[in-house]
Amino acid sequence: MRVLILGGDGYLGWPTAMALATKGHDVTVVDNYLRRNISRDTNSEALFPTPNLIERANIFHAISGFQIKVLIGDCCDYHWLNKVFADFQPETVIHYAEQPSAPYSMSGYEEAKCTLTNNVTATFNVIWAVLEQAPNCHIIKLGTMGEYGTPNIDIEEGWLNVSHNGRSDKFLYPRQAGSLYHTTKVLDTDLLWFYVRTYGLRVTDLMQGPVYGVSTIESDMDDRLMPSFNYDDIFGTVVNRFLVQAVAGVPLTVYGKGGQTRGYLNIRDTLQCVELAMCNPVKKGDLRILNQFTEQFTVNELASKVQHAGARLGIKVDVQAIDNPRKEKEEHYYKAKHHGLLELGLEPHYMTEEVLVGLLEKIQQYKAGIDKGKILPRVRWR
Amino acid sequence: MRVLILGGDGYLGWPTAMALATKGHDVTVVDNYLRRNISRDTNSEALFPTPNLIERANIFHAISGFQIKVLIGDCCDYHWLNKVFADFQPETVIHYAEQPSAPYSMSGYEEAKCTLTNNVTATFNVIWAVLEQAPNCHIIKLGTMGEYGTPNIDIEEGWLNVSHNGRSDKFLYPRQAGSLYHTTKVLDTDLLWFYVRTYGLRVTDLMQGPVYGVSTIESDMDDRLMPSFNYDDIFGTVVNRFLVQAVAGVPLTVYGKGGQTRGYLNIRDTLQCVELAMCNPVKKGDLRILNQFTEQFTVNELASKVQHAGARLGIKVDVQAIDNPRKEKEEHYYKAKHHGLLELGLEPHYMTEEVLVGLLEKIQQYKAGIDKGKILPRVRWR
Repeated sequence: MRVLILGGDGYLGWPTAMALATKGHDVTVVDNYLRRNISRDTNSEALFPTPNLIERANIFHAISGFQIKVLIGDCCDYHWLNKVFADFQPETVIHYAEQPSAPYSMSGYEEAKCTLTNNVTATFNVIWAVLEQAPNCHIIKLGTMGEYGTPNIDIEEGWLNVSHNGRSDKFLYPRQAGSLYHTTKVLDTDLLWFYVRTYGLRVTDLMQGPVYGVSTIESDMDDRLMPSFNYDDIFGTVVNRFLVQAVAGVPLTVYGKGGQTRGYLNIRDTLQCVELAMCNPVKKGDLRILNQFTEQFTVNELASKVQHAGARLGIKVDVQAIDNPRKEKEEHYYKAKHHGLLELGLEPHYMTEEVLVGLLEKIQQYKAGIDKGKILPRVRWR
Repeated sequence: MRVLILGGDGYLGWPTAMALATKGHDVTVVDNYLRRNISRDTNSEALFPTPNLIERANIFHAISGFQIKVLIGDCCDYHWLNKVFADFQPETVIHYAEQPSAPYSMSGYEEAKCTLTNNVTATFNVIWAVLEQAPNCHIIKLGTMGEYGTPNIDIEEGWLNVSHNGRSDKFLYPRQAGSLYHTTKVLDTDLLWFYVRTYGLRVTDLMQGPVYGVSTIESDMDDRLMPSFNYDDIFGTVVNRFLVQAVAGVPLTVYGKGGQTRGYLNIRDTLQCVELAMCNPVKKGDLRILNQFTEQFTVNELASKVQHAGARLGIKVDVQAIDNPRKEKEEHYYKAKHHGLLELGLEPHYMTEEVLVGLLEKIQQYKAGIDKGKILPRVRWR
């Protein structure tokens, strides 16, 4: 299948590209290095050295024999993106091309504007490039479980049947996100749903939880192929941050009471989920929404798991609650459905002690590169 | 009160400015003539000659003695808008500064992109200018009843209590709009609600139905002060379009079955509603949503009303159903609440035969200027 991956330099884009190329798909990746540039500007660079995308594709080809075509360009440039679609005629486009940091989006006007403009324009341009150049192309869009926020009712998979005053209808599940970044994903969903129902696009919107891990079948072949692994307060997701704190010998910083519950998944399961969505496309006029995570934990439970895994390696791990830099509920109801991907065949990699120990061991190899000053929150939701 | 009106050149912005200046408020209007430029580019100019904003403010001052300060500039230019807020320190900002045409937003990539970028950026910049320069300023934002679409349940005023699996929560009422223009208003609501609940803004979001009419207390003083009155397929709202068709002696063009139901209001009631919202501000951290219309009609009922009013003037009015250029339900359930503004004191001007006759008489004075070629739909929802 011809697969176009937008945001192919990212934490998830690159491993997805390798996984699908290895399965024999014809893969082209697009990136404009926005995240790399922001990482550098904010002193939030990845723990492992990450060769540029062209170099990584060359290394991957030398090791595996599989090709990944690289195009450096900006999805916000419609003329350019339109030509990419016209030339490549993708059957599936996997859209990761968004500014992914919540704290960055909350750090000031310019950062908020960059996040809003980049994310909404990229999604809008993907919609139009598909409409104009590849109308049968299946759009797989990465949303976030954060779109739903923390409602006081069960979280369904994207849609909610509502009965009201004796009548009923089905709507998008209500969305109320906790950062501007997450809110841009809500806007993306609104745009996709509008164009799906009006022009008959085919779209899968994956509401993904926080991802952890660095190990995939392909990245395990050579450390230069590892995903860009951020452990800082700007781009690092909570599990990856805790693991690096454990190795660095600093306390795990729990924001506030630590009762914040989310659905998590292993990076290997992201790759599985995206492939399952791709191999089971929806028909034209359908917006399929799938909740993409495998397990729910509170932040305190995560800290405890990292403590136990550390103990197995003889690392004493402390936990320290700090003032919450975010505005969020620290204790709340949370029960989110996630049947769809399991029904498509997802076989979860759970967060076992073995998995966490493996990650700690990998991070220990790069311990000298850890900059503890990057981990504590630098951005506050004012 | 210091009132900043964004989009002060528009059909509603200008009469609002005159009405509030006459009441003694300190009024500054902002516009970048986007709608005028699009009107000219698409050959959709208003029926009555409309002097530019500076000229109109001068005419208004000469006639009434009241001042309206005019600033020509673009709300999408944050540096400029931020300075406007810093200098004027508005206590209320009334935000009409959006590309208002649904057909324009559906006519191609560039038009859609212009609508998306202009509307979302303007709202985003207003939010930030308030946050940074006038954090106590009450934002009054014009949304649209079209945000809700045509759900199969009663439409509440902005919010919906949902019970699900034995638990309950309150959410933004589900939104599913019928054009990209209307969808940009949904995105605006999402952004406003995010910043209200996170940073404690004070916002009133007015979900307005289609407006009709040209007569206000101030515009009746001199025809050069009349609102820009569009009767074309791009900017003309349905009632105004029907009235011009009646005068021009061409059939009223009903799109499809004509069972489309919406809530309408007289332009005089728009002015009342905005003033009531302004004089009854919400407290910080509140997003008040009010449904702004006074009566519900189907398109067929509107056509019939215009027919009857025409008969009073001896005009024979025909009605012709044409293929619907839009993608919308032509027969549907529609019951929308609209208590909030009545509770604040709104005294509706209903669509009586006298009101329609008065409008027909006004339009008859300008009959020679009617270009019938502008009325039939030029844009199709493909």
